[in-house]
Amino acid sequence: MTATGSAPAAARPAEPILLREVRDGVATLTLNRPAARNALSMELMTLLTEELEDIRDDAGIAVVVLAGAGPAFCAGHDLKEIRANPGLETYEALFRQCSRLMLTITRLRQPVIARVHGIATAAGCQLVATCDLAIAADTTRFATPGVNIGLFCSTPMVALSRAVGRKHAMEMLLTGDMIGAGDAVMFGLINQAVPEAELDATVQDLAARIASKSPLTLAIGKEAFYRQLDMGLDDAYAYASDVMTRNMLARDAEEGIDAFLAKRPPVWEGR
Amino acid sequence: MTATGSAPAAARPAEPILLREVRDGVATLTLNRPAARNALSMELMTLLTEELEDIRDDAGIAVVVLAGAGPAFCAGHDLKEIRANPGLETYEALFRQCSRLMLTITRLRQPVIARVHGIATAAGCQLVATCDLAIAADTTRFATPGVNIGLFCSTPMVALSRAVGRKHAMEMLLTGDMIGAGDAVMFGLINQAVPEAELDATVQDLAARIASKSPLTLAIGKEAFYRQLDMGLDDAYAYASDVMTRNMLARDAEEGIDAFLAKRPPVWEGR
Amino acid sequence: MTATGSAPAAARPAEPILLREVRDGVATLTLNRPAARNALSMELMTLLTEELEDIRDDAGIAVVVLAGAGPAFCAGHDLKEIRANPGLETYEALFRQCSRLMLTITRLRQPVIARVHGIATAAGCQLVATCDLAIAADTTRFATPGVNIGLFCSTPMVALSRAVGRKHAMEMLLTGDMIGAGDAVMFGLINQAVPEAELDATVQDLAARIASKSPLTLAIGKEAFYRQLDMGLDDAYAYASDVMTRNMLARDAEEGIDAFLAKRPPVWEGR
Repeated sequence: MTATGSAPAAARPAEPILLREVRDGVATLTLNRPAARNALSMELMTLLTEELEDIRDDAGIAVVVLAGAGPAFCAGHDLKEIRANPGLETYEALFRQCSRLMLTITRLRQPVIARVHGIATAAGCQLVATCDLAIAADTTRFATPGVNIGLFCSTPMVALSRAVGRKHAMEMLLTGDMIGAGDAVMFGLINQAVPEAELDATVQDLAARIASKSPLTLAIGKEAFYRQLDMGLDDAYAYASDVMTRNMLARDAEEGIDAFLAKRPPVWEGR
Repeated sequence: MTATGSAPAAARPAEPILLREVRDGVATLTLNRPAARNALSMELMTLLTEELEDIRDDAGIAVVVLAGAGPAFCAGHDLKEIRANPGLETYEALFRQCSRLMLTITRLRQPVIARVHGIATAAGCQLVATCDLAIAADTTRFATPGVNIGLFCSTPMVALSRAVGRKHAMEMLLTGDMIGAGDAVMFGLINQAVPEAELDATVQDLAARIASKSPLTLAIGKEAFYRQLDMGLDDAYAYASDVMTRNMLARDAEEGIDAFLAKRPPVWEGR
Repeated sequence: MTATGSAPAAARPAEPILLREVRDGVATLTLNRPAARNALSMELMTLLTEELEDIRDDAGIAVVVLAGAGPAFCAGHDLKEIRANPGLETYEALFRQCSRLMLTITRLRQPVIARVHGIATAAGCQLVATCDLAIAADTTRFATPGVNIGLFCSTPMVALSRAVGRKHAMEMLLTGDMIGAGDAVMFGLINQAVPEAELDATVQDLAARIASKSPLTLAIGKEAFYRQLDMGLDDAYAYASDVMTRNMLARDAEEGIDAFLAKRPPVWEGR
């Protein structure tokens, strides 16, 4: 397990606030501020963004899993940090960094799976909504509770309102109430809820299955997915047709089709 | 209960066609043409729009509930009125007024909850789809039946197709068939279906919970919700980050965060 | 049953690869390459597009049903054909023709119902997502498995991601896994799943009910549905209001409303 983050010069070094483990092409990034329920301090958001940018160009990593250490996946922004240094500049820097983090996940070449447990609230719920896929323990609760402290979850809403229907998004945003994992599945916020004891196995199985695909193909497809969503239908088809044509010309597609027709496993070259 | 609408000069004054009641920051507007199943005559649409515009600037109103008197929530436009004065001008005025009403709900500072029972059809179904939240009696039926009379529900479709998935919207629009409250929940057209006996309590509880939030925060969030939905992802994040920064600088957010950290209830000042 | 497609000059003529049957205003187009699980060869896509363009101006056809002969609805593109003639020109022509087919379905005046059984994969799943409505046998399985052969289902994704939520679409696209008909209903990919023995009756009943409406009204509504979906809210309402006004001025709407008020069945003139 590779430690990321600034280790203070204290006699007994603190745990790093972001952990990274790579195994069989799957990088697991673990938010590691359990006492703060993994609140997204500026430092943690910056480290996570940098780690993802580092992973982007790492051909050895096919899939990213985002997890949280301790009792919660992520409880959102670090309110104490925010209020310790109030003012326009702090706030602008905070939400700029937060948006950059979310866009980095969406723009990453590799698919990102949220491994969710405990609670995922505010920017923590935004992380779940932003990841390409999400598997949660069936005891997980989700909320966008900013409205309760006078601060509407406006940036979480960008991701939430693109993942679930309007009525559901609005209810979460206007009430700030927790929803359970069953509702999260029904609303489309997460893909699946499983017993906590099966969470790691389910996530690892999903990650391994995706990691067995051609990384080039995954990268082409993920980029195209989000780009075409913001287009009208004609433009989306013109763009996606061009993407598929280029994909067809790649070595991995030739290999994949030939292997399929010959009923043998493909060998990806990532080009 | 404050009567709204023109009282005719008859000896025995008619009931007003729109009722307004304000209690504990919650304004309930009740369509009151029960014999016509609350058909949206030009007069009723105009009164409802004006009432909402009046509420917009009323700092004493935090939430609006939209309800219907009699056996139905709302059966759509007033076909008799339309056919009594046929022609381009009538039709243009009708759909202009209807669209203005729907946009007024969406643009209102206050969240609007539809309290639905009986039937909600055509422009009545559009009202449900347009309101920010909707709670219905489990016996309610919904439809966009215009296709049955040669008049496709094209304006209801604008709201319906933004609330539910395409296949579901198309089935309602092409068949004109009624759907039940269970399907309406599953499709995302409404938030919840409850036994009729519990409808008022459920709506009032939801309204009261939302009314306990900072009205400023609700207004900031509701406006941002609909604006960012029409944007691409980058623009949406840039916009929402700006909204959150401004929200953070408001007195209510400072108070809310400080109260939260101090574990005391917040006192909203609405600024 | 009218045969469409080129009959080879062989002694014993081959079955046509696209079948067309018209009954009571419902045209059923049946993909007829059962041995190839109805793979969409260039010839089949071209014939299907031409057939639909021919139907567009046929006032005698109110609804189109799209079905597949043999064990599967449609297994996507014809990989053997593609790999037999590799190269940029082949691929460009293929995806251009495929996109033209899908846009022809969306732009068709008549509603199109997919009658789905067996499997609907890759471009076959795209057909299901593209049709206005879809009814499937409850044993049907759906997938976008291109990722398994190094060729991400980027054009199927255009239709899929507009029919179902992002998390569900991403899971299908990134894993390539089959989903069952129950999930397809829950995700919104299809309208209904029924026992295979009831599939034809259910589809025919749905088609007949829609075919009883004014064809003019259906055409107005279907066109407006897809156009307004790509607009912002204000533009969508301005456009839809204009559509409804023009619809009101049509003979069929006057007739429909008058018939409704007089409680008699309407007589459509299609104008």
